[in-house]
Amino acid sequence: MRVYVLNGVNLGRLGTRQVDVYGLTSYADLVTMCVETGRELGLDVLVRQTDAEHELVGWLHAAADERAAVVLNPAAWSHYSIALRDACALLRGPLVEVHISNIHAREEFRHHSVVSAVATGVICGLGVDGYRLALHHLARRLSAETAAAGS
Amino acid sequence: MRVYVLNGVNLGRLGTRQVDVYGLTSYADLVTMCVETGRELGLDVLVRQTDAEHELVGWLHAAADERAAVVLNPAAWSHYSIALRDACALLRGPLVEVHISNIHAREEFRHHSVVSAVATGVICGLGVDGYRLALHHLARRLSAETAAAGS
Amino acid sequence: MRVYVLNGVNLGRLGTRQVDVYGLTSYADLVTMCVETGRELGLDVLVRQTDAEHELVGWLHAAADERAAVVLNPAAWSHYSIALRDACALLRGPLVEVHISNIHAREEFRHHSVVSAVATGVICGLGVDGYRLALHHLARRLSAETAAAGS
Amino acid sequence: MRVYVLNGVNLGRLGTRQVDVYGLTSYADLVTMCVETGRELGLDVLVRQTDAEHELVGWLHAAADERAAVVLNPAAWSHYSIALRDACALLRGPLVEVHISNIHAREEFRHHSVVSAVATGVICGLGVDGYRLALHHLARRLSAETAAAGS
Amino acid sequence: MRVYVLNGVNLGRLGTRQVDVYGLTSYADLVTMCVETGRELGLDVLVRQTDAEHELVGWLHAAADERAAVVLNPAAWSHYSIALRDACALLRGPLVEVHISNIHAREEFRHHSVVSAVATGVICGLGVDGYRLALHHLARRLSAETAAAGS
Amino acid sequence: MRVYVLNGVNLGRLGTRQVDVYGLTSYADLVTMCVETGRELGLDVLVRQTDAEHELVGWLHAAADERAAVVLNPAAWSHYSIALRDACALLRGPLVEVHISNIHAREEFRHHSVVSAVATGVICGLGVDGYRLALHHLARRLSAETAAAGS
Amino acid sequence: MRVYVLNGVNLGRLGTRQVDVYGLTSYADLVTMCVETGRELGLDVLVRQTDAEHELVGWLHAAADERAAVVLNPAAWSHYSIALRDACALLRGPLVEVHISNIHAREEFRHHSVVSAVATGVICGLGVDGYRLALHHLARRLSAETAAAGS
Amino acid sequence: MRVYVLNGVNLGRLGTRQVDVYGLTSYADLVTMCVETGRELGLDVLVRQTDAEHELVGWLHAAADERAAVVLNPAAWSHYSIALRDACALLRGPLVEVHISNIHAREEFRHHSVVSAVATGVICGLGVDGYRLALHHLARRLSAETAAAGS
Amino acid sequence: MRVYVLNGVNLGRLGTRQVDVYGLTSYADLVTMCVETGRELGLDVLVRQTDAEHELVGWLHAAADERAAVVLNPAAWSHYSIALRDACALLRGPLVEVHISNIHAREEFRHHSVVSAVATGVICGLGVDGYRLALHHLARRLSAETAAAGS
Amino acid sequence: MRVYVLNGVNLGRLGTRQVDVYGLTSYADLVTMCVETGRELGLDVLVRQTDAEHELVGWLHAAADERAAVVLNPAAWSHYSIALRDACALLRGPLVEVHISNIHAREEFRHHSVVSAVATGVICGLGVDGYRLALHHLARRLSAETAAAGS
Amino acid sequence: MRVYVLNGVNLGRLGTRQVDVYGLTSYADLVTMCVETGRELGLDVLVRQTDAEHELVGWLHAAADERAAVVLNPAAWSHYSIALRDACALLRGPLVEVHISNIHAREEFRHHSVVSAVATGVICGLGVDGYRLALHHLARRLSAETAAAGS
Amino acid sequence: MRVYVLNGVNLGRLGTRQVDVYGLTSYADLVTMCVETGRELGLDVLVRQTDAEHELVGWLHAAADERAAVVLNPAAWSHYSIALRDACALLRGPLVEVHISNIHAREEFRHHSVVSAVATGVICGLGVDGYRLALHHLARRLSAETAAAGS
Repeated sequence: MRVYVLNGVNLGRLGTRQVDVYGLTSYADLVTMCVETGRELGLDVLVRQTDAEHELVGWLHAAADERAAVVLNPAAWSHYSIALRDACALLRGPLVEVHISNIHAREEFRHHSVVSAVATGVICGLGVDGYRLALHHLARRLSAETAAAGS
Repeated sequence: MRVYVLNGVNLGRLGTRQVDVYGLTSYADLVTMCVETGRELGLDVLVRQTDAEHELVGWLHAAADERAAVVLNPAAWSHYSIALRDACALLRGPLVEVHISNIHAREEFRHHSVVSAVATGVICGLGVDGYRLALHHLARRLSAETAAAGS
Repeated sequence: MRVYVLNGVNLGRLGTRQVDVYGLTSYADLVTMCVETGRELGLDVLVRQTDAEHELVGWLHAAADERAAVVLNPAAWSHYSIALRDACALLRGPLVEVHISNIHAREEFRHHSVVSAVATGVICGLGVDGYRLALHHLARRLSAETAAAGS
Repeated sequence: MRVYVLNGVNLGRLGTRQVDVYGLTSYADLVTMCVETGRELGLDVLVRQTDAEHELVGWLHAAADERAAVVLNPAAWSHYSIALRDACALLRGPLVEVHISNIHAREEFRHHSVVSAVATGVICGLGVDGYRLALHHLARRLSAETAAAGS
Repeated sequence: MRVYVLNGVNLGRLGTRQVDVYGLTSYADLVTMCVETGRELGLDVLVRQTDAEHELVGWLHAAADERAAVVLNPAAWSHYSIALRDACALLRGPLVEVHISNIHAREEFRHHSVVSAVATGVICGLGVDGYRLALHHLARRLSAETAAAGS
Repeated sequence: MRVYVLNGVNLGRLGTRQVDVYGLTSYADLVTMCVETGRELGLDVLVRQTDAEHELVGWLHAAADERAAVVLNPAAWSHYSIALRDACALLRGPLVEVHISNIHAREEFRHHSVVSAVATGVICGLGVDGYRLALHHLARRLSAETAAAGS
Repeated sequence: MRVYVLNGVNLGRLGTRQVDVYGLTSYADLVTMCVETGRELGLDVLVRQTDAEHELVGWLHAAADERAAVVLNPAAWSHYSIALRDACALLRGPLVEVHISNIHAREEFRHHSVVSAVATGVICGLGVDGYRLALHHLARRLSAETAAAGS
Repeated sequence: MRVYVLNGVNLGRLGTRQVDVYGLTSYADLVTMCVETGRELGLDVLVRQTDAEHELVGWLHAAADERAAVVLNPAAWSHYSIALRDACALLRGPLVEVHISNIHAREEFRHHSVVSAVATGVICGLGVDGYRLALHHLARRLSAETAAAGS
Repeated sequence: MRVYVLNGVNLGRLGTRQVDVYGLTSYADLVTMCVETGRELGLDVLVRQTDAEHELVGWLHAAADERAAVVLNPAAWSHYSIALRDACALLRGPLVEVHISNIHAREEFRHHSVVSAVATGVICGLGVDGYRLALHHLARRLSAETAAAGS
Repeated sequence: MRVYVLNGVNLGRLGTRQVDVYGLTSYADLVTMCVETGRELGLDVLVRQTDAEHELVGWLHAAADERAAVVLNPAAWSHYSIALRDACALLRGPLVEVHISNIHAREEFRHHSVVSAVATGVICGLGVDGYRLALHHLARRLSAETAAAGS
Repeated sequence: MRVYVLNGVNLGRLGTRQVDVYGLTSYADLVTMCVETGRELGLDVLVRQTDAEHELVGWLHAAADERAAVVLNPAAWSHYSIALRDACALLRGPLVEVHISNIHAREEFRHHSVVSAVATGVICGLGVDGYRLALHHLARRLSAETAAAGS
Repeated sequence: MRVYVLNGVNLGRLGTRQVDVYGLTSYADLVTMCVETGRELGLDVLVRQTDAEHELVGWLHAAADERAAVVLNPAAWSHYSIALRDACALLRGPLVEVHISNIHAREEFRHHSVVSAVATGVICGLGVDGYRLALHHLARRLSAETAAAGS
């Protein structure tokens, strides 16, 4: 079972600055953690990051074609990119939106994500552990769906 | 390690109606799932539900006194009860806010929770699985803190 | 046929002050009028008042369980208690919201009731006669439903 | 005792479309029901409908001259016609505003009526039965006033 | 020199009610005063009142065709009738908007007139004397223009 | 196939003023162009204009009765006449809203039309050619529907 | 009979710039015109201008002590000086607010004057002729009051 | 003379946390200080605290019945509990609203109290000394009223 | 005569999902239809689609250099991309903005396009036929301009 | 110990008008009361009033230089004078803002004071007794600080 | 060539407090720096500061009369003084608005300056170096104008 | 010392159109001017322009790695690209935001830049001279820092 873990703009800089907001984990650590969590859960996890909106849109289109599940951290784009929202609305598998920091405890303009309304659910403020939880949720949801389909 | 799982107004009715929004799990199922998840994780989980705001405030005060962790689903109170927000701000352990439904995909007035800004993080839209994930997160966080304190 | 007539915070003080806004009828008069109207209409009318939100929520849960009709005057809670709104949304019988005064002719913050969107209908500004009209409407509606079910 | 039952724009189409919102009663049925209810209550009921704002304004002026009571369904005009509001403010008898549908459960722009602040009271969401209730209220109010004047 | 003095909805009721807001002058008095003031000033004054928006629009079209000056009291229409605003924008002579009461000292929604931005100027709160002043201003302005054209 | 081309308030003045906004075409030219375009397309085109809202409402009711298609330029009424919106919502054929000027490049209050949400589509800013395009669209749509019905 | 004609900040520059907005009349011309108009009307007219808010407040206090009438052009202060508003509220004679330009046809922030709600009335957009009209109104009003007091 | 000193939700926790906002005084200290201040001033001071809104409403009803004066710190309820506001509006003695912290220097949502408009006055930001000042004010006011009544 | 038909983000997915909103036409069908329509009209039509904003900006710059006409469907970018708006403002030929769906009948945030104010006109809600109409309009406009230039 | 009692615009008129809002005390009475209260409390009280903003700013600068405490009634300036706010922010002693009337029970624009966020605390609605309470608070605070500094 | 460097309210206190916001430079240092920079650039620089709005207005009038260039730091007045804005609009030379701190990184109400729209340009957040840059810009601009005038 | 001069979307078109807003300088002229100014000041100036947001983000990341200073003109992106804001927040050297035109004198939506709050300072409206001033400021600031570090 394929799961895309997609990361938006500036997230490649994780661990290099603003450690008070995002913690000490580097982006490489995040990739490793997601892949290993996937392996434990029997999921085929692909982790990607880009600073180019169109690249992220392309990955979402690919996920839509594959009916794959998606874990998405849209970063700054969360707050205004209706382009991403519309690409997310094309998905046919579940979508978990993740934010490392608690966006509700930061500046007013970060309180709202235009993506959330088309996501299955949202996890925020639990650090990079949010990715791990999202994968656990998807594993459980997908195995339940497989079981249902098999019965 | 003590974790309070606190549920606000109308949540005792879980499973009896609005299954399109909240799913089929009954409140009793939710309690069982939380307690069992706690047992697996080595957590002392107390699950409570009330329709009386002052009772929930009292439990939060108790949790503050015990430096306990809290999983809180404030339900309808999320959107206006500054009383609960202030009680949450008194906590000394971590607080994970959980919503069964994706509040960002419902009416405009449900998009904002006055509690979120004083929570550690928020999980919404993942059904009752959100409680399980919250407990997993707390177990990992508390064991990390214990390890850090022990070193 | 059971009809709950439920009254919210401060309504027990009816007739003791602010007679320019609410008229001279006391709360006891209101109870008597509702019960007598119910008797004339062949309805089993239960009249309740409370200053505790959770008590009102409990009565709404009871009405939901009994599939009873409800006449509700949420008083001050009308304007912010999403807890009451959600409890009303659980009802399975018709709900008529009643306000003694014309809330649209008072302070700006009284013009909107968060309950109205989940009510069947609203009567306001007709004094305590609004309760009588609500009961008349319910009697007619319930007998029409009974007739339809019987045919 | 004279009561004007005045209906605004598009209400002549009642029963021909949007039955999910307005029900199956035709405008002719509404007229018959009002007239018969008036007869039972000893009221001289005049029922009128117009798509021309100035015609409705004229009827309100006539009602003001006669100190008559008014039941008014301003339909779409409710939400912006200050002209109607000002004509209503000229009335010297009681004014009950009626809406067939529950305007608070429809589009945002229908939640507010500019007429309500100058009405005696408002009934909405109870279907065409709202007219009957309005007439009952007026009959009771007018006979009480007559009794008071006679004593 | 032709001047139209045009009065909008409900103004025919002047003097019959709300004397605290509009004073004791009747509409007939207003007409007389305007005609006499016009005679003193050498102006051909036509005074009109209507409760029908389209009739007022028609008079404004006529005034546009004649390049006449206009004194306009749009009454309740001031606050929302963009139809009147657009008709006023077609005028080729000066336009003085008049309000008998001080609209800035009344309800919030009366503080703004959609017509004012396309008027030459506005007089409000000076009672029916505002009409007289408007005519005096037009007389002075028109004679200045005539003088300028003659030189 | 019947198509109503309906024009609202002030549009009879087309070509007499504000040529910078609306161009040089007169209202008579517009009528001719629509009728001729209809003839080419095999449509029975009726062109109407009125400054009276109730007359326009009446034509919309007629179109609803005939299941006719409608091209509507509501002019100034676009921005506030919920009465027209509700009349449009009664239509059973397609409705194309047309504006001669680009309303999005004019005053803020012209950017929103209350009619658009119940129209099939909107054409604005393309001058009187917008009417021709609307008729072309309707001809194509109606012939497609006829073809579909015939198959 | 004493009338204060008070002018606020920057009005001493009248006639030196922005002639498209304020016309060609200089401040000296304005003073002369007001004094002469007063002489014709039998009024004791004092014309003042200041760029210092406290000086204007002082003149308003003097006018209050003398129960004098006031013609006030608050200029830029109109839009925010609650200090002036409160000083105007102390007046015991009539107050006519005058603006040379039509403030409703200029920037959004000029559409509202905080003074208007405590004025008797407002004249705007009629150029310096607005002062003359204001004085005419006051003369008529004061002589009517004198007549009333004398009877 | 009876004075109720009523404290709302979470105030029982005073002194246990957030000492940067509320200072070091414990709730017990606050009670002692109020009682002693009352004794010095010859007032019968009753100090109460509750986390249950209905209990506070009940005490306000009692104070209304006794025509007692009230010092009220509504805490978090200040910002949304219209129920408390309405209960306060029933009082017949003076009401001083007290906040320990300066609510205007905290989060935006704390700047407004729905209770203030029906209070006699408000003291905020002066720490627990605000209670002492409120009692001093009431003592002076009540003795003045007594003196006035006795003369 | 060159016409660019430019399509923004996610439009390459046309026909693969959300057929209730966008219809069944695939993106390839759209291209074919535009090219063929261009051929009939004697226009040199270039159809492009991209998910990368900078690519679209580049095509607009090219169109500006060539003084070409443009048909633009900015898709999700319509609602926030001021970058596109500014690129459109550089054009020297006419610009017709097209939306396949009726954006005014969808979510609130889709009602406003930041591009419209700098477009010649807008067509929305008429499905892919909107492109055909836009090309027809441009053909007529360009031939009129050519005729005018030739005379 | 020096305490400045500073009064803003129009407060010199105290006692001459609007006795329903501000009471009967004259400004001279207020000065006497403050000085005498200061004497009782061992404070060196300077009472000042001005209608000139710059004079008040100067006194605040002086108080800042002397590290003096301040009691400030900014009157109308409370609601917009950021100049005063910035001058208050320079103070090094405590600042108590006082309003004679309850600003929260008056016009909407008086509910907010731009000064409050930089004050120590606020007293409003308690009449001129508010000044006395402010001085009592400062005396207690300053003696506590002196005691702390001495220990 | 004359350049006025004008400083508004509280700026005379520069260097005495809030060094985290405004830095350590005293007002005297600022004056010296501006005068010396002017000397280097061949400009006749006059530096002024006042806490009185009318004095600043007077200097702006003088600058207008002399067609001088102006560097203006309106300080707190930036955010509300339309009086200053109007005085600035009278200038005939270039106007550079300077803020020492970055107003966009401070409180919300400081983000907007009512003066900026009538300035040539704005420099903020670069400390007192902003004044130096402004003078450099004016020197370059004025010499370019002189060169242009001379050619 | 390295300084990046980064230019956003559409700025490569400088000098080709909208010369009333941006002046006659071409983008090539701008590059030359910046490089030459850098040479005079002893700065290593790199000038870049892109229409692709991700390319600009990449340059900001590079500048962050090099601790370089940045001059940034985000053009249209200023008003909504939180992605750029977050990339700017990663910088470790000073950042001067530059706008060629005075954004406060243009459309409302251009008045706010989401980047400004994380910049050191902003220069706008001074044409391309703003870049030169920014470089002068950085040269002075960097040499001061070097001097401080060397001492």
